[in-house]
Amino acid sequence: MDVISTAKAHGGVQGVYRHRSRTTDCDMTFAVFVPEHQPGEKLAVLTYLSGLTCTHQNVMDKGEFRRAAAKHRLIIVTPDTSPRGADVPDEPDNWQFGSGAGFYVDATEAPYNANYRMYSYITDELPALLAVNFPVATTRQGIFGHSMGGHGAMTIALKNPDIYRSCSAFAPIVHPARADWSRPAFEKYLGADAKAWRDYDTCLLIEDGKRFPGFLVDQGTDDQFLENGLRPELLKAACETARIPLTLNMREGYDHSYNFISTFMDDHLAWHAKRLKP
Amino acid sequence: MDVISTAKAHGGVQGVYRHRSRTTDCDMTFAVFVPEHQPGEKLAVLTYLSGLTCTHQNVMDKGEFRRAAAKHRLIIVTPDTSPRGADVPDEPDNWQFGSGAGFYVDATEAPYNANYRMYSYITDELPALLAVNFPVATTRQGIFGHSMGGHGAMTIALKNPDIYRSCSAFAPIVHPARADWSRPAFEKYLGADAKAWRDYDTCLLIEDGKRFPGFLVDQGTDDQFLENGLRPELLKAACETARIPLTLNMREGYDHSYNFISTFMDDHLAWHAKRLKP
Repeated sequence: MDVISTAKAHGGVQGVYRHRSRTTDCDMTFAVFVPEHQPGEKLAVLTYLSGLTCTHQNVMDKGEFRRAAAKHRLIIVTPDTSPRGADVPDEPDNWQFGSGAGFYVDATEAPYNANYRMYSYITDELPALLAVNFPVATTRQGIFGHSMGGHGAMTIALKNPDIYRSCSAFAPIVHPARADWSRPAFEKYLGADAKAWRDYDTCLLIEDGKRFPGFLVDQGTDDQFLENGLRPELLKAACETARIPLTLNMREGYDHSYNFISTFMDDHLAWHAKRLKP
Repeated sequence: MDVISTAKAHGGVQGVYRHRSRTTDCDMTFAVFVPEHQPGEKLAVLTYLSGLTCTHQNVMDKGEFRRAAAKHRLIIVTPDTSPRGADVPDEPDNWQFGSGAGFYVDATEAPYNANYRMYSYITDELPALLAVNFPVATTRQGIFGHSMGGHGAMTIALKNPDIYRSCSAFAPIVHPARADWSRPAFEKYLGADAKAWRDYDTCLLIEDGKRFPGFLVDQGTDDQFLENGLRPELLKAACETARIPLTLNMREGYDHSYNFISTFMDDHLAWHAKRLKP
């Protein structure tokens, strides 16, 4: 693991790191904020999954999470959203597929299955790397994200309630098997048979019996993707049927941007901190 | 004035605007955050001057000021750092002069004196524009900034204590007449006679009798520019001699970046809010 940069921030250290991933077969960059802590002390860790087009850097720059993370003593991990590099197949003109659009799935279709394995990267390889290199309490993990990353966080939590204690999302894609921006990507990563997609769709995972102790979701009412892509009412219906506690906050006048995310970041970190206590 | 973008953030509105400036004879872009407020209510306004290479956007994205600005009900204005455009003389390969490096002076030397008039732009034209377009309490203005912008804020405050009630700085250039990165720019903007430079040098303005009720300055001890360019001990000596109250916080381990600025942003907004009360 190479250290790209470190800087003191809000009493802790905001770092950027790079490593060769065996899972995605390319170099992966990620950022970690470690709050001030005692020598030998282990801290809860919260992974933030970003949305389409983002890298590790967008939320690191604009998410405004460090102040509250320092207060709650949470390590914040912000991975990249896809494999990248000259050897990684991509569609450079398509922002909804390939680089920046890994959708947190393990692709099964060639040529994407060699690199696009973000599900295993996020749930397996990256946590193992973090456990060795940072003061992580591995039994106290949470996950959250934005848009495509909210989809990633909720699908990962539903499939791994033994690993993740808490899950929240900003403006998540809750039913990607039906959303315009995700269907073409799912077909390329997972094949034409939509049965295989169910394993990466929050609403369908719940329909298929997966459960989680509860979700916090914030959604702006002026989000330009609200009606065609996000449709939080589908999540609400799925959670009600399955009796999964859902706190869904519709936020008047907010859009899909980091202005929205940063505004409600404190609330989300407090939610996770409460559930990630020792 | 054209509206480039607006978004709801922390209960208020973060906007980006552009107008044709008669002072700098080019289009100028700036950002304004207006907290939630009552109809007809006027709010105190705090102008943030950015450092070398920055535009209005860097601190808008990375400064983490909106939460505290909303709490204290402060309008935050973040102007650009220089005139820009195809018709504006520049040295594209020089980050310490020209575009992104206006040093908040009114240039007297051709060809720069036609556009590089950031002192008058910040103290005169921009506040007048803001007073017409935003709910600004014009009798309650403060100013602060970072690095070159800290220099700008302090020199402007010292020359206009009737306009600005409060002034603070992050890692300011306090004696640009002697600093390596500012001397060449001062010579090009203001001519070879260093007497003309005194009007834009915090330490020399104080030596020449200018006064201000007090400054708050934060400075990282791991700032890569600390010893050669910033030298806060010169400000300390000048303020002690002149009996200007100076709160100088040396911050262990912090660098020159927005990681440093954002960490102490809350403290600075609280400092200004106290002095900008109705």
